[in-house]
Amino acid sequence: VGEDTLGTVGEDGLIASVLVRYGPSPALVRVGPGDDAAVLDLAGPVVVSTDTLVETHDFRRDWSSGFDVGVKTAAQNLADVAAMGARPVALLVSLAAPADLPARFARDLADGLADECARAGASVVGGDVSAASEVVVTGTALGVLDGGRPAVLRSGARPGDVVALAGVTGPSAAGLALLLAGRGPDDGDAAAVAVRAHLAPRPPYEAGPAAAAAGATALIDTSDGLLRDAGRLAAASGAVLDLDPAALAPGADLVAVAALLGAADPAARALEWALAGGEDHALLACFPAGTALPAGFRAVGAVRAGDPGVLVGGRPWTGPTGWHHFT
Amino acid sequence: VGEDTLGTVGEDGLIASVLVRYGPSPALVRVGPGDDAAVLDLAGPVVVSTDTLVETHDFRRDWSSGFDVGVKTAAQNLADVAAMGARPVALLVSLAAPADLPARFARDLADGLADECARAGASVVGGDVSAASEVVVTGTALGVLDGGRPAVLRSGARPGDVVALAGVTGPSAAGLALLLAGRGPDDGDAAAVAVRAHLAPRPPYEAGPAAAAAGATALIDTSDGLLRDAGRLAAASGAVLDLDPAALAPGADLVAVAALLGAADPAARALEWALAGGEDHALLACFPAGTALPAGFRAVGAVRAGDPGVLVGGRPWTGPTGWHHFT
Repeated sequence: VGEDTLGTVGEDGLIASVLVRYGPSPALVRVGPGDDAAVLDLAGPVVVSTDTLVETHDFRRDWSSGFDVGVKTAAQNLADVAAMGARPVALLVSLAAPADLPARFARDLADGLADECARAGASVVGGDVSAASEVVVTGTALGVLDGGRPAVLRSGARPGDVVALAGVTGPSAAGLALLLAGRGPDDGDAAAVAVRAHLAPRPPYEAGPAAAAAGATALIDTSDGLLRDAGRLAAASGAVLDLDPAALAPGADLVAVAALLGAADPAARALEWALAGGEDHALLACFPAGTALPAGFRAVGAVRAGDPGVLVGGRPWTGPTGWHHFT
Repeated sequence: VGEDTLGTVGEDGLIASVLVRYGPSPALVRVGPGDDAAVLDLAGPVVVSTDTLVETHDFRRDWSSGFDVGVKTAAQNLADVAAMGARPVALLVSLAAPADLPARFARDLADGLADECARAGASVVGGDVSAASEVVVTGTALGVLDGGRPAVLRSGARPGDVVALAGVTGPSAAGLALLLAGRGPDDGDAAAVAVRAHLAPRPPYEAGPAAAAAGATALIDTSDGLLRDAGRLAAASGAVLDLDPAALAPGADLVAVAALLGAADPAARALEWALAGGEDHALLACFPAGTALPAGFRAVGAVRAGDPGVLVGGRPWTGPTGWHHFT
């Protein structure tokens, strides 16, 4: 007998086996999955964002388990909510997939979603399944702003602010480079960490509300690469972000991965990953000078007046600058 | 020179040309598209649902314009929110598409989304674009429950209640049958109406909050066909829904389409569409006996005690029962 597929278990069978994986709903979920819509008992402003992962383009089934894709879907969406200074509370997930997709992949996906939602203090409250010729997973995350604080936008940075980063940048790109080269988690601890960071990122969600509480003036998630997302923050704020290359110097693990891959200058390659690699979902924030940085953040630069843009050590960066779709 | 495609205009160019189509955000949208997430100023419980349309499976680009797909994406999602008794307020949309998709399709999609959101009193507050090998559009709709009323679930119907319907069922299935037969809007008014109903449904959103205000005990959207969705309501409520075939008798237009397609018994074919055809997004509600039905609703049956299920004129229905994915 073959393995169960979406075609053999059917829509209702799949949904039933997925819903048990999400466990009981927290108190703020008045109505969870199973009706036309979910009902959330949110008291104030609601923060909401959506993001999609597409097979081949955003993940490969020979590299990623269903669990990994679930973690990554949840992480991408919940990180965007945290990047507004909000506390993630809920996730909806739409799965489009071919009928011959192993049902186990969809069940593992649900486990990954539930696992990463639990890390973030959120829960899966709804979803949808459809037939498609490739696997496409779309998440929508909701969050709340605690303490009546406003959302922290990209546009509030002012000259004199400190630029700070929670989380690290580079490991996801290093992990992708390893996988593309046919290497993997068996190539040592540094490789294993990088590959995990690429397949199933675990963003520092708590840093988002902590930044808001500490008075952050601007906040963004580094999903498309530190330089590209710093550039968006700089453009929205009408200011220069001058990043400190010493503070962003890649760790020994990242350099070790570059060496493993035969880079002529492993430190330079690792710095490229740290500056331009996407999908790490670190949080980049600006704070008024003198702010005691909240736990998890370290200073990585300063905001200056000038034509909006990003500098590295006072100079333009001439290497690659991040991930673009379609181009 | 060829037509613009997603590949030639790029992600940022596409987003810029789409955002202008959504117009200014209403007051409750504190932060609209362009930051990591949107912020909505919602005062109470939030109703949220997600749904996906996939090229080939859910629409064909030779039948549907981008505008049509935009209307249908908005309609499917906003109708689910209305089917909880909520007033739709916001929509997020994720577009996954190949790089050679004409950029005009994506811009028309935005126009269709904006048009149907305006009909519903909602607005597009966020989205995402990704590369994929086929067009996949996922919407997520949010709504609010006015007047402190609870959401109207599927599970509240009680023996003695009146079953009522807002909107019509059948036209979407008739339109699909026409298109599959190579017929279309040029085959007369009845055909044109049915094809429009299939390609760009326009659900009666206002009937959702009106049903809640009138004391509806249960409410569902007929997205998968009247009998299948009535069966879900019956199962959730632990009751029998006995539908009145006279009240559900298809209109002359639907019979005319069946005749046009050469059905041996056009009235019987039209009744099949009305009972089993999906994607009309009519709203099926139950009300305590004696309730003055709100505008737009007409009585189509009664709730009885017994083994949960659906009867038509007191007897089981033996024809097709609605749309299933994967099977």
